[in-house]
Amino acid sequence: MASLPPVKVGLLGLGTVGGGTITVLRRNAKLIASRAGRTIEVTVASARDLTKARDFDTSGIRLVADPFAVVDDPEVEIVVELIGGIKPARELVLRALANGKHVVTANKALIALHGNEIFEAAQKNGKVVAFEAAVAGGIPVIKVMREALAGNDVLWLAGIINGTCNFILTAMTEAGRDFGEVLAEAQKLGYAEADPSFDIDGIDAAHKLTILAALAFGIPLQFDKVFVEGIRNITREDVAYAERLGYRIKHLGIARQREQGIELRVHPTLVKAKQPLANVNGVMNAVMIQGDAAGQVLLSGRGAGAEPTASSVVADLVDVVRALTSDTEHRVPHLAFQPDAVEAQPILPMEDVETAYYLRLNVSDRPGVLADVTRILGDRGISIEALLQLEHKEEGPGTVPIVILTHRVREKAMNDAIHHIEALAAIQGRVVRIRLEALK
Amino acid sequence: MASLPPVKVGLLGLGTVGGGTITVLRRNAKLIASRAGRTIEVTVASARDLTKARDFDTSGIRLVADPFAVVDDPEVEIVVELIGGIKPARELVLRALANGKHVVTANKALIALHGNEIFEAAQKNGKVVAFEAAVAGGIPVIKVMREALAGNDVLWLAGIINGTCNFILTAMTEAGRDFGEVLAEAQKLGYAEADPSFDIDGIDAAHKLTILAALAFGIPLQFDKVFVEGIRNITREDVAYAERLGYRIKHLGIARQREQGIELRVHPTLVKAKQPLANVNGVMNAVMIQGDAAGQVLLSGRGAGAEPTASSVVADLVDVVRALTSDTEHRVPHLAFQPDAVEAQPILPMEDVETAYYLRLNVSDRPGVLADVTRILGDRGISIEALLQLEHKEEGPGTVPIVILTHRVREKAMNDAIHHIEALAAIQGRVVRIRLEALK
Repeated sequence: MASLPPVKVGLLGLGTVGGGTITVLRRNAKLIASRAGRTIEVTVASARDLTKARDFDTSGIRLVADPFAVVDDPEVEIVVELIGGIKPARELVLRALANGKHVVTANKALIALHGNEIFEAAQKNGKVVAFEAAVAGGIPVIKVMREALAGNDVLWLAGIINGTCNFILTAMTEAGRDFGEVLAEAQKLGYAEADPSFDIDGIDAAHKLTILAALAFGIPLQFDKVFVEGIRNITREDVAYAERLGYRIKHLGIARQREQGIELRVHPTLVKAKQPLANVNGVMNAVMIQGDAAGQVLLSGRGAGAEPTASSVVADLVDVVRALTSDTEHRVPHLAFQPDAVEAQPILPMEDVETAYYLRLNVSDRPGVLADVTRILGDRGISIEALLQLEHKEEGPGTVPIVILTHRVREKAMNDAIHHIEALAAIQGRVVRIRLEALK
Repeated sequence: MASLPPVKVGLLGLGTVGGGTITVLRRNAKLIASRAGRTIEVTVASARDLTKARDFDTSGIRLVADPFAVVDDPEVEIVVELIGGIKPARELVLRALANGKHVVTANKALIALHGNEIFEAAQKNGKVVAFEAAVAGGIPVIKVMREALAGNDVLWLAGIINGTCNFILTAMTEAGRDFGEVLAEAQKLGYAEADPSFDIDGIDAAHKLTILAALAFGIPLQFDKVFVEGIRNITREDVAYAERLGYRIKHLGIARQREQGIELRVHPTLVKAKQPLANVNGVMNAVMIQGDAAGQVLLSGRGAGAEPTASSVVADLVDVVRALTSDTEHRVPHLAFQPDAVEAQPILPMEDVETAYYLRLNVSDRPGVLADVTRILGDRGISIEALLQLEHKEEGPGTVPIVILTHRVREKAMNDAIHHIEALAAIQGRVVRIRLEALK
């Protein structure tokens, strides 16, 4: 152990995760060295503002303003990219690889959008790009999917992979509060950005789902094929009605293998209140994976934050250290499958996805309308699992909400049914539709 | 990928897990090869009874009665040991290593009792012994502990690591039934052995905890230091009282780092009903790990069964295939830490362990006794968190059960308090004591 020299790391970005990474590497230096067999040292780091006061110790680290000075530093063996975004991260990572350095990154957007190009460059240069921290913070879902489940045919996976959405939905459920009110609180607490759309409209979850699906099914990264729906339109009424029917509303990323292709979708989802995923609350993340051999495996923990994310960055560093001298043929492949085995498979358009549904309609309180609605559903092969006709409410005199849970059906049939239901004279406004999953 | 020849595997044992392993390797052969970069082939297998009909396909596998013929087969590169027990498994594994073969095993008793010797032999021979399947079946807790949490100081871990115990306690909780009745049912369902003591007395869980603790803290395997208590004495009354106080009783393996040393213990434990571990039911297993950086990470899934266990065996095979040509210095160390960094640390005797307690006493219904009990506790610095004085019950006329939850205290103080409480004239029989953990 003592015979091997320290590994020199260059760090791009001294924000939250950069600081967490330096802190963890220093606090646990001895433990980490005694696991990795080598000391891991950050020798150089770049930051936009070098004069800024920081609440972590950067002594002994050369600080530079130009990130390219880090990736071009001949001493650096591994570059850790923690600046986020595409520009200049993409160029920095590609240059690091071209310079013969391994890369560790927490950048989900970069991997989801440019991973195919980046992994090809890594392959060409015989280097590793590790990205555990890009999905679900401190939860080791990349490693579990790529290595621990290597014997499985992954049938589906479903994950709570955006902490902001989960915090908001949990607060709406527990306190019976409105979306807007809870969002404002989340922003105050730092759980949501000033511009929250990246999180609450599902883009961030879709980046992560893109990565997980590639690992699960051996398909290329293809973010643009993910169906994405956020949580802006979830009302406290829907949360309450779901609860009354024994369900919780969670924002899930779902990837499922079907005979005709692969379902890739991010949307609010009703799940049974007893399901483990229904009980993952607040900012916690969780991913459930159904393997044909392992059965259901659930991983949960902190999906964000300085040190949970740093935990995954450091685990990647240790893995990369182990790969420093290994022959490239025997490394864990970037996307779980050997590059020549990654194969495009059809991604199903949302119209062909099959799920069950929660529907809420506001109905003029007149006889016959329920018969019309159930006929429209029945004509399209949509059977009803439960129906709640509720007391009068604030929607106005003469209207009552009706909540319907359906059995599984193709989205196309449901779109058509909703179109016809909304055309009924007795229906007020739009039909609310939230998808429902048994997760079995 | 196509350029590398198949890896030849010799299998010891064609029981449940052996059959599962062959089945999974065959069913998912193409997927596994496209992840590992090599085809994995079982070429030879040993079984006690070669004439036995089996419900899995062994065509193309040379079957032999003598397991030593497998470990001595010059063609075999990896030996998979699935016969269990110590004899002759220990000798077979050591001989396989001496013959220059890597080993994959699901044998928790072997690793817990003889792991130190076996890993030393592996090290000496430059080979790998992989044992993911030895703990918690299809849940990749070994990999997560050794690799994914490599950056963490593990503060504690707690696990439901015996499916039989969890099945019995879950049924007692959900159906309000007695231990003996549920055990008989578990035996009928195949969830408990004819001689169930290995499971219900906690030995099996202690084997697994021994392994997890070594990986977490970098200490040698030391099964004989684990405090072990099974579930035989848990009554349905205690289950019901715990429920009333907002707790569930789970059989946990707990390892915790404290300043003075390490706690290693297996016992029934009250955990808050809202805790994730409290909601892992039936034969499911789960392990919660508290890292200083990652925070709490929870893994749950199937802890036993042919294919879940095979899933871990195959993952190990893929890992070993990747290690076939790597330099030994850069491999993942067997016990997570480099061999020269594994260090004995004091294991605390149970008397020095600190937990909270659930106590149940049967008290003659006479004034003053509660004052005596609380004085005895108070004198020893034991403060009371909750107290339930219950209605008369079947224990006999004139006695009532009292249930007390205490705050944390050293076991030694509690032993002394119980000794004095039992000496009170008004106390009937023994004081029931179940430990309680906040898992924070």
